[in-house]
Amino acid sequence: MSPRGVFLVFEGIDVSGKSTQARRVALSNDALFTFEPGDTPLGAELRHWVLDAATPMNPATEALLMLSDRSHHVRTVIEPALDEGRNVVSDRYYASTLAYQGYGRGVDLALLRAASELAIGSCLPTLTILLDIPLEVVNERRAHDAQDRFESADLAFHQRVRDGYLELAQENAWFVVDGSLAESEVAGVIDERVADLPW
Amino acid sequence: MSPRGVFLVFEGIDVSGKSTQARRVALSNDALFTFEPGDTPLGAELRHWVLDAATPMNPATEALLMLSDRSHHVRTVIEPALDEGRNVVSDRYYASTLAYQGYGRGVDLALLRAASELAIGSCLPTLTILLDIPLEVVNERRAHDAQDRFESADLAFHQRVRDGYLELAQENAWFVVDGSLAESEVAGVIDERVADLPW
Repeated sequence: MSPRGVFLVFEGIDVSGKSTQARRVALSNDALFTFEPGDTPLGAELRHWVLDAATPMNPATEALLMLSDRSHHVRTVIEPALDEGRNVVSDRYYASTLAYQGYGRGVDLALLRAASELAIGSCLPTLTILLDIPLEVVNERRAHDAQDRFESADLAFHQRVRDGYLELAQENAWFVVDGSLAESEVAGVIDERVADLPW
Repeated sequence: MSPRGVFLVFEGIDVSGKSTQARRVALSNDALFTFEPGDTPLGAELRHWVLDAATPMNPATEALLMLSDRSHHVRTVIEPALDEGRNVVSDRYYASTLAYQGYGRGVDLALLRAASELAIGSCLPTLTILLDIPLEVVNERRAHDAQDRFESADLAFHQRVRDGYLELAQENAWFVVDGSLAESEVAGVIDERVADLPW
């Protein structure tokens, strides 16, 4: 039996650069790259519903759809890969729901944590890296068209999400990187940290 | 402002006769008839996934999809009707998830209850009626073709679901009706009980 793989998660708000870094680190460490929401056939349908700004939806429903996607993703993609000894890098994981629906939209955090445990069971990341950027940088980077439900939310919402992420990072001893640095600098800081992982 | 409507829920295993009774009682009391899973556009898609026996699915994912359906159903159908003073009769509600995914499939009940609270908020039924039938009657009544994920599960599963329902009924002071009686007798017992409700 192979030892369980490394499970590295990138978190952050949308234009923080986390997707770029997650893909890059997966590629350079020969790990499976995956993302949430939507990286299974079921998940792709759920993602459509949850990001479609035209369907009015209660934040609790939004959270439960995200958790359904995650539960299926963990059981059909992440855990099977880790169990085979493959390394996995995911763009978003359980903290996204706590940050966006909990801190951002005000869904009860204790209930969300319990529901989150239903979704992920005991599958915790080896390491979570948060790419943190201040709101001014978000505004500079953001295109002003084709916004989904989250991108079109107001600034105060994104500030709560960012603050939530920072609180979670402190609670859980994540590695926090200043995402407002140049891409190559961000990459350097991340590479130095992930070199320690048992890939 | 009209007073909040009556919210009556029917629970029970599939061939218990609950759907027939729920529809009948809704009609005779001019109440909105509704059901779970699947009585919203989002819910109809979730129902397809959750009942499609061809897609392997972890019980926790199954539960979270059911709760997503319920959360949307409560917020877009049940609560708005009750708030307008309409009476609502639902074929299944939160107890179905506790009975099927909790007692039936072994998903952690404490986590399920917390996730359930996310889904329904404070929207509790005025009264829940359980149509209870022994497994022998289930077998007699059940057609042997076109079975979905739940209908094709084994007898031990249905026994656990039934036992779970009975435990929940005792805990929550539901009205339990012997569903193995003739349909007209069942109707008589139910009508006598629901005549007391503030329709």
